Amino acid sequence: MTRNIRLTLAYDGGAYAGWQVQPDRPTIQRTVEEAIWSLTGERVSLLAAGRTDAGVHALGQVANFRTASPIPPQKWRPALQSKLPPDIVIRDSREVPLDFHATFAAKSKRYRYLIRHSIVDDPFLRRYCWRLGGELDVPAMNVAAQCLVGTHDFRSFESHWPNTSTSVRTMTRATAFRTSAWLPWSVPETADPARDSGPFVCFEIDGNGFLYNMVRAIVGTLANVGRGTWTADDFRTALAAGDRRLAGETAPPQGLYLVSVTY
Amino acid sequence: MTRNIRLTLAYDGGAYAGWQVQPDRPTIQRTVEEAIWSLTGERVSLLAAGRTDAGVHALGQVANFRTASPIPPQKWRPALQSKLPPDIVIRDSREVPLDFHATFAAKSKRYRYLIRHSIVDDPFLRRYCWRLGGELDVPAMNVAAQCLVGTHDFRSFESHWPNTSTSVRTMTRATAFRTSAWLPWSVPETADPARDSGPFVCFEIDGNGFLYNMVRAIVGTLANVGRGTWTADDFRTALAAGDRRLAGETAPPQGLYLVSVTY
Repeated sequence: MTRNIRLTLAYDGGAYAGWQVQPDRPTIQRTVEEAIWSLTGERVSLLAAGRTDAGVHALGQVANFRTASPIPPQKWRPALQSKLPPDIVIRDSREVPLDFHATFAAKSKRYRYLIRHSIVDDPFLRRYCWRLGGELDVPAMNVAAQCLVGTHDFRSFESHWPNTSTSVRTMTRATAFRTSAWLPWSVPETADPARDSGPFVCFEIDGNGFLYNMVRAIVGTLANVGRGTWTADDFRTALAAGDRRLAGETAPPQGLYLVSVTY
Repeated sequence: MTRNIRLTLAYDGGAYAGWQVQPDRPTIQRTVEEAIWSLTGERVSLLAAGRTDAGVHALGQVANFRTASPIPPQKWRPALQSKLPPDIVIRDSREVPLDFHATFAAKSKRYRYLIRHSIVDDPFLRRYCWRLGGELDVPAMNVAAQCLVGTHDFRSFESHWPNTSTSVRTMTRATAFRTSAWLPWSVPETADPARDSGPFVCFEIDGNGFLYNMVRAIVGTLANVGRGTWTADDFRTALAAGDRRLAGETAPPQGLYLVSVTY
């Protein structure tokens, strides 16, 4: 009997060349596929909601694969974990209908980007956020971020465009706020940008799809607003221009987290 | 002119075989000594307050070295940082009298040990705390810890004893409390064990000297009290016995931090 198993995964992407299998480089997909192979002898294809890039983390990545193995759905979690390195954690396993496809069935994904505001390095946080010196005007970043909400052509924030049939996507929420929580799990789901404080700046965005490097390009551009070198209008103009060269730099991968996927 | 330079260092010990130089293995001491050599051409001996073990971290390690270099004392911080990997951070550099010796002049050191109470792994915290499943009775751990305060023979908590002329040391503070702060820097200096809450258990101890693996053996034994398999009296009896075999296991290194040194 063929089953379709859905996994929820958290991982520290620091040691991996991203989700997708690449020749001769360790990836999350290959590592989990090899754990499945080692459990069952089956060579499966693991399909993910978001193909996170090299160095990008996940709190709630969703993936699925088909198997003829008799392992009960809930037992996949501990069984796979026993074959995986500690930087990849299976949070949940369950059976889903055979036609469930983690990539195409995803209605919405949430990404989070963490910036640490400090002039000094921190040996414990360097893998998990982007350190920026100088003060950041977070309310101004939040105002600029609001123009992302809605349906737009996001090619200004796409690397190597045009690489898809369309670069139009719909964002339902975009917010920038200060937080004292570093721990990715403990950043509050909803926060009041006016009230929070702390040494971290958190940017969160929900949307129906994301282009290659899109969140990191948005964050690099929002940082210009935070530093005061760009206005919110400059940000809006860059979005409307449809030209990657007119937006800001691409923020580094270690601050980015795929938080959750909605089906 | 010979100067004596004092450094304050923070480091993530995960990639190092401890402080002290060892043949063919990366250590903090060797890495910093090579950074000094690369700056000045001088082969110096770097003396540290605490020779942290493999995998142990530091927030405020103190070290000193003598140099004939004309680099101004405060400039050593950025100059050395430019030669160091990001998991070793120089927090401060200053000139001290020629007879200052970071090891022998230390009056007191503070160590912190972080336990995360969870049955599930976390890919982001595995390098920075000890994960323990099951509930821990933290007030009971704190009561037991009080018998460490004072002058005692700590050979029950020493690996490979007797390896020093005396295993008598004086502890001035020992406390176990819950905290919601993971970030090592953000754990409060003083905490009320009765009032704090959160998913982390923090053990802190101040003393005039520590034997090999002593804090980790204390924490492994306190964990027995936390689990309820030992009473505070059992802990006191283990301390008094002077026999390592009667104390608990040695807690793993990644939860331990050298917080600060007092001169």
